[in-house]
Amino acid sequence: MAQRIVVIGGGAAGIGAAGAAKGTDRSADVRVYTEFEDVGYSPCGIPYVHGREIPDFERLFLATRETYDNAGIEIHYETRVTGFSPGKKTVTVAGEGEVGYDKLIVATGFEVLDGVKSAVVVEASPLGLEMVTALCHRGIETHLVDPGAWALSVATDPDIIAPVQDSWQEKGAKLHFNTTLTGFAGPGTVHAVQTSDGDIPCDLAVVCTKKEANTAVAAAAGIRTGSAGGVIVDERMHTSATDVWAAGDCTEIPHSVTQIPIQGLSGSHAYSQGKVAGTNAAGGERRYQPVSVPWGMMAGDWMIGGVSFSETLATALGIPHVVGVAEGISRARYYPGVEKVRVKLLAEPGTLRLIGAQMVGREGIKERADFLAMAVRTGITINEFATMENVYSPPIGALNEPIALAAQNLLAGLGS
Amino acid sequence: MAQRIVVIGGGAAGIGAAGAAKGTDRSADVRVYTEFEDVGYSPCGIPYVHGREIPDFERLFLATRETYDNAGIEIHYETRVTGFSPGKKTVTVAGEGEVGYDKLIVATGFEVLDGVKSAVVVEASPLGLEMVTALCHRGIETHLVDPGAWALSVATDPDIIAPVQDSWQEKGAKLHFNTTLTGFAGPGTVHAVQTSDGDIPCDLAVVCTKKEANTAVAAAAGIRTGSAGGVIVDERMHTSATDVWAAGDCTEIPHSVTQIPIQGLSGSHAYSQGKVAGTNAAGGERRYQPVSVPWGMMAGDWMIGGVSFSETLATALGIPHVVGVAEGISRARYYPGVEKVRVKLLAEPGTLRLIGAQMVGREGIKERADFLAMAVRTGITINEFATMENVYSPPIGALNEPIALAAQNLLAGLGS
Repeated sequence: MAQRIVVIGGGAAGIGAAGAAKGTDRSADVRVYTEFEDVGYSPCGIPYVHGREIPDFERLFLATRETYDNAGIEIHYETRVTGFSPGKKTVTVAGEGEVGYDKLIVATGFEVLDGVKSAVVVEASPLGLEMVTALCHRGIETHLVDPGAWALSVATDPDIIAPVQDSWQEKGAKLHFNTTLTGFAGPGTVHAVQTSDGDIPCDLAVVCTKKEANTAVAAAAGIRTGSAGGVIVDERMHTSATDVWAAGDCTEIPHSVTQIPIQGLSGSHAYSQGKVAGTNAAGGERRYQPVSVPWGMMAGDWMIGGVSFSETLATALGIPHVVGVAEGISRARYYPGVEKVRVKLLAEPGTLRLIGAQMVGREGIKERADFLAMAVRTGITINEFATMENVYSPPIGALNEPIALAAQNLLAGLGS
Repeated sequence: MAQRIVVIGGGAAGIGAAGAAKGTDRSADVRVYTEFEDVGYSPCGIPYVHGREIPDFERLFLATRETYDNAGIEIHYETRVTGFSPGKKTVTVAGEGEVGYDKLIVATGFEVLDGVKSAVVVEASPLGLEMVTALCHRGIETHLVDPGAWALSVATDPDIIAPVQDSWQEKGAKLHFNTTLTGFAGPGTVHAVQTSDGDIPCDLAVVCTKKEANTAVAAAAGIRTGSAGGVIVDERMHTSATDVWAAGDCTEIPHSVTQIPIQGLSGSHAYSQGKVAGTNAAGGERRYQPVSVPWGMMAGDWMIGGVSFSETLATALGIPHVVGVAEGISRARYYPGVEKVRVKLLAEPGTLRLIGAQMVGREGIKERADFLAMAVRTGITINEFATMENVYSPPIGALNEPIALAAQNLLAGLGS
């Protein structure tokens, strides 16, 4: 008889898992339960609908309901799973009762504190940076409130974020750093955000706090959760319970440098984890590796990005490091549109293995962040970067790659 | 007494060498001889002056004569070195006689067959592709004549170059493949290019044949040259003669995959080699590694690039390989400006180490080529690429990196 693979959650991890499970075992009965009226929706696109780069929310859907029907994946929309039992191998579905599974994949994602609206962005998280950029883009007076000393201070250093903050201020944004949220002033709809630095009047507020793992159902079923608040999984994305896998924002994954579990990664990570979980649940074999976490985004007039630790975070965590910084250029120095690209590299003292990077420029940051994440994973050293080959073609690349210059400066700083 | 370091040639390798030598030994007497009236000129920018992206040739100079004076580098302009003697440790300078050296760096570059002008581009070399693109950009009727079956057939496969050729044809270019140059019709200025397929009338001809190593002076001095026609150097860029180094297009360098020497690399390679030669000549220590040769350029409406072998070239050379191809996208599927990115990866059977890649898209090709060149050098495998992490942010990167998709397809093709 065909095995039944149940997926809880219809986000990137859940849809990735369902597709991989069906791809691994065509005969499997694969069904997805979601509380929402749609699946495969891209929440990552929301800031750009607000910024009007994207005309409407309809564009954010990956596929139609028919697509999933045709793929043989059974999706139960607006259906809440209230619990599951690894012992009985059943899930409890609101209004349906208990449904048996052979394999279960938990992809319950994260919870967002939204429901509040106004012209203040609370917290300079990645989403906060995107929202400030989008609101500025529409000419709305925008305030940013953040307890840190600069934007995205868990991932960036001040020298990297400075041009981004300057470009927001040029567009009229007001930046309130070292400032905490204390409340929202009513009555009825919010008309001011209350902070440690006084009230900020506004019509709209956007709360961009971090993603908290949604582990309620899994924890209630006795599945182990870890130090970062997510479901603990092994490299096959298997949980502490037999035949139960988990993937996406509800899980925690070890960092490749420190091996410390972290939570709240990107949609790309969730999708990849879903594929690993789905493949293994259906009887295939695929493993997920510790993460180096490349990140990147448009912020103000700049593209910023990086991988793993900033200098600030490495210092705060007590991780030994040496640093090299360079300001290179994106094209030949005489080619129209040439722009500066600032690169900062962090390496482990002694071995000089790359352990972190940050970049700010106008283009090519995503691809460099992907490159540097692979370098962190595979142990590429600053010596290799200092002697790296690079494309030189006037419209697309400069004589010297900025990453190579930062590595050369790091070595020069060591006196080698 | 200060050591005298003589550099023959004022291109990227020569200027890189002189700067590195002075940086390594501030007291050294560093002098550069060039036949031309300027040094540090970027010939790579020429197609874009013709294409009018760059307003004039003056923009192509790296620095003024005063910059070199201030750096303590003595440049002898319009001065021809007619020979040198490793035995006597002298160079022979036209009009000046013999000049002694302690260390000599040969950076005599390449020779170009220009002096001919018309509306036919002869040979679909990298320069040829840039010239066709530039001439099309200006609305000039452009013919391309090439003995290969498609453009840049030493580096590309037909599926990669197809969109480029389509975009040239949309702009009115006439492509003459499998066609050889037989001559130029006069009298006086050229009014037609003669080919194996008949005469092509034109006002302007641009001959874009490959760079041949200029080894005349070095060979006359008894320096060993190799199978690719360049000066043979070790990893310190030292030649077969004591205290004589060489760098840039006059040399040949082993390929990282085959260890077979190749010649005629990029200006970026020449500059890096110059720095290695200059550092070592001045008493420092720096090594140059075998090359993986990332390349990239704008061609028609596309950005193309790659590293090491195409499928066609690997097959022709009898290099065993397995292939994976994917067509991914550059941004989120709903984000304005999203474009396809085609990636082809070649790997060594068994180990699945990357040995070649090609890409065609609209952006981010240079950075990916640099990444893949480092991967070829350091032995990163298709398994790593298939599970790579990537930035996902709607305006700058898609959920799935196209390199990862090509690697996943390669593995799927192997049945693993």
